[in-house]
Amino acid sequence: MSGKFIVFEGVEGAGKTTQIHKTANWLQSWCGKDRSVFITREPGGTKLGRQIRQLLLEDPDTWVSNRTELLLYGADRAQHVESVIRPQLDRGDIVLCDRFTDSTIAYQGYGRGFDRDEIDRVNQLATGGLQSDLTFWLDLDVKIGLQRVLSRGKPDRMELATLDFHQRVRQGYQELANIYPNRIIRIDADRSESVIQIEIQSILMQIDWIDFSGLT
Amino acid sequence: MSGKFIVFEGVEGAGKTTQIHKTANWLQSWCGKDRSVFITREPGGTKLGRQIRQLLLEDPDTWVSNRTELLLYGADRAQHVESVIRPQLDRGDIVLCDRFTDSTIAYQGYGRGFDRDEIDRVNQLATGGLQSDLTFWLDLDVKIGLQRVLSRGKPDRMELATLDFHQRVRQGYQELANIYPNRIIRIDADRSESVIQIEIQSILMQIDWIDFSGLT
Repeated sequence: MSGKFIVFEGVEGAGKTTQIHKTANWLQSWCGKDRSVFITREPGGTKLGRQIRQLLLEDPDTWVSNRTELLLYGADRAQHVESVIRPQLDRGDIVLCDRFTDSTIAYQGYGRGFDRDEIDRVNQLATGGLQSDLTFWLDLDVKIGLQRVLSRGKPDRMELATLDFHQRVRQGYQELANIYPNRIIRIDADRSESVIQIEIQSILMQIDWIDFSGLT
Repeated sequence: MSGKFIVFEGVEGAGKTTQIHKTANWLQSWCGKDRSVFITREPGGTKLGRQIRQLLLEDPDTWVSNRTELLLYGADRAQHVESVIRPQLDRGDIVLCDRFTDSTIAYQGYGRGFDRDEIDRVNQLATGGLQSDLTFWLDLDVKIGLQRVLSRGKPDRMELATLDFHQRVRQGYQELANIYPNRIIRIDADRSESVIQIEIQSILMQIDWIDFSGLT
């Protein structure tokens, strides 16, 4: 039994954290006997990654070059894949990850303007070729998402980027969903948490690599 | 007047730090009127880079994947080139740098076993194509170098790598010097500091891009 890798993507404030936890609880409740459900995130899914996350996000006053940013996200991902995601998948676990390679394409590619080739090379080096089995793209108007984020408290460096930047990021997700319709599923995130969660559950129940026979 | 970029390379304990400071003092003494001489190093030539250096070297107990290491050195270099080296060169300064791209080829390529293509892609992304005008490779038997390092105090993560690793690194520098004889100059570092410094000065005096007319 090999593990499965499910990624949640979207702009700031789209509700990824809420949905990833609800999805984990739901999955765990019926497949917990057979395999564990594990939640992680990027950047910051490892001890080293949490230090990289601080450099990337939590000091908005330090200027970070676009090339540095791209390579730091890659370094965080390389450590995360090798020391957390791959070992969990090898154990047969279901890994739910908040952001992965598509974030880099959307934010550093569409947002910052790097060539797709450059992004792909860094992603390939960082992941060794690992892709998600399924990606939920929580799609939300960026103004609504940023309003949610700002109401939470002190925004991080990425959240402080311009509205225009975040609109390019959303456009990037849209194009990725068009290119990879079998891997990336768009979820309208401008609805209540419960409705969004039910849609995610209904999609997961159609997937043959999760055994739902124990579900009553 | 465009600046010049001189790099010092070599295995641990080869005497780079000593020679770079002696060289800077000597250069400053006669061309200081026309342009500044600036010393920097990798990793850690910027504020962000000093935090990356800590992650890379100063916590030998934290496991760092080879891919993470390569990408972190790249991130440090990208920040260094954009915020320090390029601006200094644009001002016409002479920049002396302790380690640059050849360290990555020697340590992560020959030492860790990454393909040259992968290394070159990360170096290209990090530097935007910037190369040294001249590189002094201080060549020393790795056993002698590591003995010097261990006598100084607590070794860092790279200094703690195996002797075999450091021998591959030295072999890497040898091959690079063979491939790029006009850019990389081997200096026998198993001699006194003064003799090594005189050889470096004599080589610099043969170079037409430094104006020695003020030297008496």
